[in-house]
Amino acid sequence: MANGSGTLSKSSRCSEHRIRRRVQFHETDAAGIVHFSCFFRYMEEAEHALWRAAGLSIVRSAGGLGFPRVAANFEFHRPLRFEDEFDVSIRIVAIKKKSIGYACSITRGDERVATGTLTIVCVSRRPGGEMKAAPIPAEIADRFEVAAVGDVT
Amino acid sequence: MANGSGTLSKSSRCSEHRIRRRVQFHETDAAGIVHFSCFFRYMEEAEHALWRAAGLSIVRSAGGLGFPRVAANFEFHRPLRFEDEFDVSIRIVAIKKKSIGYACSITRGDERVATGTLTIVCVSRRPGGEMKAAPIPAEIADRFEVAAVGDVT
Amino acid sequence: MANGSGTLSKSSRCSEHRIRRRVQFHETDAAGIVHFSCFFRYMEEAEHALWRAAGLSIVRSAGGLGFPRVAANFEFHRPLRFEDEFDVSIRIVAIKKKSIGYACSITRGDERVATGTLTIVCVSRRPGGEMKAAPIPAEIADRFEVAAVGDVT
Amino acid sequence: MANGSGTLSKSSRCSEHRIRRRVQFHETDAAGIVHFSCFFRYMEEAEHALWRAAGLSIVRSAGGLGFPRVAANFEFHRPLRFEDEFDVSIRIVAIKKKSIGYACSITRGDERVATGTLTIVCVSRRPGGEMKAAPIPAEIADRFEVAAVGDVT
Repeated sequence: MANGSGTLSKSSRCSEHRIRRRVQFHETDAAGIVHFSCFFRYMEEAEHALWRAAGLSIVRSAGGLGFPRVAANFEFHRPLRFEDEFDVSIRIVAIKKKSIGYACSITRGDERVATGTLTIVCVSRRPGGEMKAAPIPAEIADRFEVAAVGDVT
Repeated sequence: MANGSGTLSKSSRCSEHRIRRRVQFHETDAAGIVHFSCFFRYMEEAEHALWRAAGLSIVRSAGGLGFPRVAANFEFHRPLRFEDEFDVSIRIVAIKKKSIGYACSITRGDERVATGTLTIVCVSRRPGGEMKAAPIPAEIADRFEVAAVGDVT
Repeated sequence: MANGSGTLSKSSRCSEHRIRRRVQFHETDAAGIVHFSCFFRYMEEAEHALWRAAGLSIVRSAGGLGFPRVAANFEFHRPLRFEDEFDVSIRIVAIKKKSIGYACSITRGDERVATGTLTIVCVSRRPGGEMKAAPIPAEIADRFEVAAVGDVT
Repeated sequence: MANGSGTLSKSSRCSEHRIRRRVQFHETDAAGIVHFSCFFRYMEEAEHALWRAAGLSIVRSAGGLGFPRVAANFEFHRPLRFEDEFDVSIRIVAIKKKSIGYACSITRGDERVATGTLTIVCVSRRPGGEMKAAPIPAEIADRFEVAAVGDVT
C-alpha cells in the first residue's frame, strides 16, 4: 500500500488503500451470497479508510463541504459467502478541480471477486439543503494523488 | 385504524397505524429468511407512517428537536420469506412528558410473526451535538393518544 | 406501464415496470440524504416487481436456477431525502440466451434523480455451491421482451 | 476475554468475546448517528466472532441445523457517530437444551453506549422450510459455557 516514490511532497500523498474484511451474516441474502448492494458499501468503507490514511475524515475535514457520490458501478465476477475473508483495494484514478475518481478491486486470496469505480464530487450546501459543486479545498487535494497504473492487483 | 371515539378533540388524535409491506430480497439472509435486524426497521417504518397519519413528520415537525430510540425489542415467532406480504401494526402504549412508548405486532395473514416494543425520547441538541431530554412540544403531543387496549390484533 | 403493441403473444409479455416508493429513515445517512447503495436496492425492488407483474417470482420460478447480478451502475443526479416520494422505472433493454439487461430511471415528480443499469445472468448451482451460466428457461424468457426505446422517461 | 479458570475441560470453553469496530458511513442516518437497527447487527457480529473463537461457524458447523433469533433487545444510552471506534462485548448468560442466551455491552472508551440481549434457538428444517426446535448438538454445546457474572463491563 505504500504509494510509490517520487519527490518528498509526493511521497506523503495517498493514492491507494486496502482493507481486509470478513463477510457478516446480515450482508448475505437468500441466495446464500453477499447482496450486490453491499459491494458498494465495501468500496466506500475502503475509500473512507483511504481518507483516514491521508489524515482526513471525509465528513469532519470538509468544513461544511460534502462529497456525494455521482457515479458508481461494479462488475461481479465471483460471489462472496458468509465468513469469507476478502480484500478491498481502492485507488485514485482521477483528481479534478471538483471531483475524484476511484477504481476498486475486491479479491479473495488470488481470486478476483468484483471490480468497481466510484466518482465523488465536492459540494457546498446552500440554505435549504441544495448542493452546488465546489472546488476541492487545497488542504484536502494536497493529501491525494493519482495512483500509478497497475498498483492495485 | 380508526382511533377510538371520545370527544371531538380526542377523535382527531392518532394512537395506532398499520402498514402493509412485502419482503424485499435485500432484507433476506443466507438462512433464507428476513434478517432479524430488519424487523426493527419495519417497526420504525410503521411508526413514521403513524406520524404522517397524524399530519406530522418525525424529522421536519420537530423544530430542531429529535426523537432518538432509547429502547427496542422484538420476539420472533415465525420467519418471513422473500415476497411474503405482511402487516406491521404499531400502537401507542405510553405518552410521557419526554417520551413515547409503542407496541408493535407483525402478522402475515392470520399468523403472528413477531411482537415488539419501542421507546423514543424527545431531545434537543446542544452545540457539539450532545443530546438532552426535552419535553415533547404540545403541537406534537396533542396529535397522539394512548391506544385503547387490544386495538391491535 | 403498458408494454407496447405487436402481436397478441407479444402483448402479454412484460418489458417494463414502475413502482412508487417513499424514502425510509434507515435509508438515509449522516449527510441527510439516501445512501447511494440504497439506489441499487430500489432498482432491484423494481426488477422483482416486474417479474411479479409477469406472473413470476425471481426466486421461486427458477426451479433451482438463480439470477445473480453481474454488473450494476448508477449515475446520481439529485439527492433523495427522508419521506420523499419517488418512482423507480425499470425497462428491459436486452434479453440474451443467458442474461437480461435492464435500464432504470429514478424520478421525483418531474425531476430526474438517478439513472442506472443492471445485468443479471441465469445460473445453475453445482454441488458445492459453484455457479455456472445456464440458458434462461423458455417459461421465463417467454414472459419478457425488450422495451421499445424511450418508454421510460 | 480469557474465560476464567476451572477444570481443564472448562477452560477450553468460550463464554464471551469482544470485537472492536468503527462506525461506517452507511450505518449512520439523517440524525447524524448510527441507526438503532445497526446495533443488532453489531451484536450478531460479536456473537459470530465468539463462535469462531470457539472453533465453530454458526452456519457451517450446524450440519443442517440453524440458529434463528427468537428475542432481541437493546437499550441505547449514548449515540455513536461516523468513524467512532467502539467495542462490542458479548457474553453467554444461559445455555439450555435448545437455546442460548447472550448479554451484550457496547462501549466507546469508558462510555457505556448500549446494552442488549439476544436469544437464539437451535432448529432443524423440515421439507418445505418449516423450522422445529431441536437439541443443540453436543459438539457445539461443549464449546461454550455460561460466563461468570460481571466479566463484561
